[in-house]
Amino acid sequence: MNLREDIQAMGRRAREAAAHLAGINTETKNRTLIQMADSLGASFASLRKENEKDLKLAREQGLSPAMIDRLTLTEAVLENMAGSLRAVAALPDPVGEVVRMWRRPNGLEVGKVRIPLGVIGIIYESRPNVTADAAGLCLKSGNAVILRGGSEATHSNRAICMILQDVLRVTGVPVDTVQIIPTTDRQAIHEMLCLEDSIDVIIPRGGEGLIRFVVENSRIPVIKHYKGVCHIFVDESADLTMAERICINAKVQRPGVCNAMETLLVHERVASEFLHKIATSLQERGVELRGCPKTLQILPHIKKAEPDDWDKEYLDLTLSVRVVKHIREAIDHIRAHGSMHTESIITSSYERAEQFLREVNSSCVLVNASTRFSDGYQLGLGAEIGISTTKLHAFGPMGLEELTTTKFVVRGNGQVRE
Amino acid sequence: MNLREDIQAMGRRAREAAAHLAGINTETKNRTLIQMADSLGASFASLRKENEKDLKLAREQGLSPAMIDRLTLTEAVLENMAGSLRAVAALPDPVGEVVRMWRRPNGLEVGKVRIPLGVIGIIYESRPNVTADAAGLCLKSGNAVILRGGSEATHSNRAICMILQDVLRVTGVPVDTVQIIPTTDRQAIHEMLCLEDSIDVIIPRGGEGLIRFVVENSRIPVIKHYKGVCHIFVDESADLTMAERICINAKVQRPGVCNAMETLLVHERVASEFLHKIATSLQERGVELRGCPKTLQILPHIKKAEPDDWDKEYLDLTLSVRVVKHIREAIDHIRAHGSMHTESIITSSYERAEQFLREVNSSCVLVNASTRFSDGYQLGLGAEIGISTTKLHAFGPMGLEELTTTKFVVRGNGQVRE
Repeated sequence: MNLREDIQAMGRRAREAAAHLAGINTETKNRTLIQMADSLGASFASLRKENEKDLKLAREQGLSPAMIDRLTLTEAVLENMAGSLRAVAALPDPVGEVVRMWRRPNGLEVGKVRIPLGVIGIIYESRPNVTADAAGLCLKSGNAVILRGGSEATHSNRAICMILQDVLRVTGVPVDTVQIIPTTDRQAIHEMLCLEDSIDVIIPRGGEGLIRFVVENSRIPVIKHYKGVCHIFVDESADLTMAERICINAKVQRPGVCNAMETLLVHERVASEFLHKIATSLQERGVELRGCPKTLQILPHIKKAEPDDWDKEYLDLTLSVRVVKHIREAIDHIRAHGSMHTESIITSSYERAEQFLREVNSSCVLVNASTRFSDGYQLGLGAEIGISTTKLHAFGPMGLEELTTTKFVVRGNGQVRE
Repeated sequence: MNLREDIQAMGRRAREAAAHLAGINTETKNRTLIQMADSLGASFASLRKENEKDLKLAREQGLSPAMIDRLTLTEAVLENMAGSLRAVAALPDPVGEVVRMWRRPNGLEVGKVRIPLGVIGIIYESRPNVTADAAGLCLKSGNAVILRGGSEATHSNRAICMILQDVLRVTGVPVDTVQIIPTTDRQAIHEMLCLEDSIDVIIPRGGEGLIRFVVENSRIPVIKHYKGVCHIFVDESADLTMAERICINAKVQRPGVCNAMETLLVHERVASEFLHKIATSLQERGVELRGCPKTLQILPHIKKAEPDDWDKEYLDLTLSVRVVKHIREAIDHIRAHGSMHTESIITSSYERAEQFLREVNSSCVLVNASTRFSDGYQLGLGAEIGISTTKLHAFGPMGLEELTTTKFVVRGNGQVRE
């Protein structure tokens, strides 16, 4: 069989499934999600066997222990996957929500009603649990999904997908609601990105390389973020104990994720006091600091920040540090070097808090809180399908609502236009 | 000077203007809009002179009388442009609206706040009034705009733009908020479509050819509709007098626009009665009918519809007519041949009205009303910058709100993530 034709056929089946799915009620969707959770929980032995095939190849190819760890399906990981599906079942169904409704002078009743996007393509390279998570979120929001996971997890992803499809067969939801591209051939991604008639949006999840590849090759709209170069600005009026606690959390709690802090900006009036304090705390936790010239005057033993450090997403225990003259310089630095992801100000000044919230044009702007809260679950969306740092359609963490759009529904009684 | 460098410089200036614009208050924006209206009104003589240059070229090139009519700036057209700017000034400012706000269990206060998209690129080929309309809507929503009008209106568009910029200079809004690409060189569009770092979204307005060209060449997200193949389904339970009135309005009132009816679907139980009636009324108004085989049995003297007629946007006094067995066949026909723009059902059945509203996945679905209401003004958005028939970001007529996005604003008092 021909790869292009196979992928095109998957697209048509997804489109067909989406058409039926839009008419399926919330109860059926929730029942399906819960049965998926049960089914995954009951399939540990068989999943482990498929996962072992991936792990064997990974070891042969000399993947890093961290990569192998992420690839491994333990009972705890499986429980987590099942738990996520149950959590999605418990969330309100966004489909059918009347966002707004009003009456026109001529008596027309106009409503904006939430509907599914249609077919979502998800291209990812991370853990196999994304397979179940993404399928669950798409199903709940009434969308069919075509998944394309990383080649290192092929056996695991396929096995998970088959379990989910078996449940669909039983609960009466179209089985093509969840499909996975079965080949590791990279050409398959190319073919997928050409299906503009079948796929409504592509969401890539993974490293910057994957995302750039998708953006450059897609004819379908892409929702994405390239990277998170997140900043914290410690204002002169900051409670420095709070600032220290938040900076440590933002840098150290999980340095490998996109909402971790990469650059610390400190007001010059508190720079000496705060930097001595924070440097010790961070270095004790293994963080390497790279400073601007003014920072180096205060902390002469740290490394000098090179010009490109200000644009780097380290995803590691490394932190750039810059002393700024005032909030204006901090905001300008963020505008020049930020990735429109997440920034936080630590301050006790009402005026500067509001200025920062107003003028920083990132998708998530915080006052006196860790950047690590920029996350669908933490912000209270109940779930997260990804984060967008482009402004179209969605900006910031995306939950179920961001997998929908609205249509106009108009009820009349014979109106014509004059 | 180099075209590429010129366009790139325009992009950088627009981005810079957008950054300042986000901080300008509603009052200043409204004052600017009203002064723009006054200034246009007072410039009839000078605008007419520039317009005459376009008209002279148009006549030399043998443009159709309809085209020349659309190109002509009369006093009435100018009053209309000024009126639109005043109407936009009177609309509520979408920027800063707190769409939703909630508190998390840990005390974080999370808000979604409306912000401008940033820089909008508008590529159009229609009347010169789009220049002022688009500039006004972008300004009110806090966006900078780069305009690229049709080459046949270059002198008029440039003159309008200069008048608007003169007002910006006076009211203290960055002058680069409104820029126009001064050359008719088509290569300029290419260069514009590459400015993914400077332009956030491209909105093309014009014929299908222009729009396809933009979509195929843009690296920037595009909001668009290709065409409007709008349907009316006359159900067996329809009030046939109402159905006739609505069908005539939808087809005849202004046949050259995207929300006019192109295909009439009639339930077979009322086909004979209704088609005889409507055929006479439509033919009296100069409409040519093209029918399916069942329609031809009822109206043997009309033309036969060819297979590709069902996908045609005539934009003219032509109508395809098909007799269907039931609402299911009507909905399936729309799914197969519709453009996801606008469809209406004429019915007195509650059940079928709701089924149609639920199952038809077009951006605007109506019951017992003319398709001609699918329009930003008519639906009560107060304005219209365009219509989207793709589901991402916006679906259907777009007003000021659709020129914005939301960011997350989070107020804490020291929260860190566990």
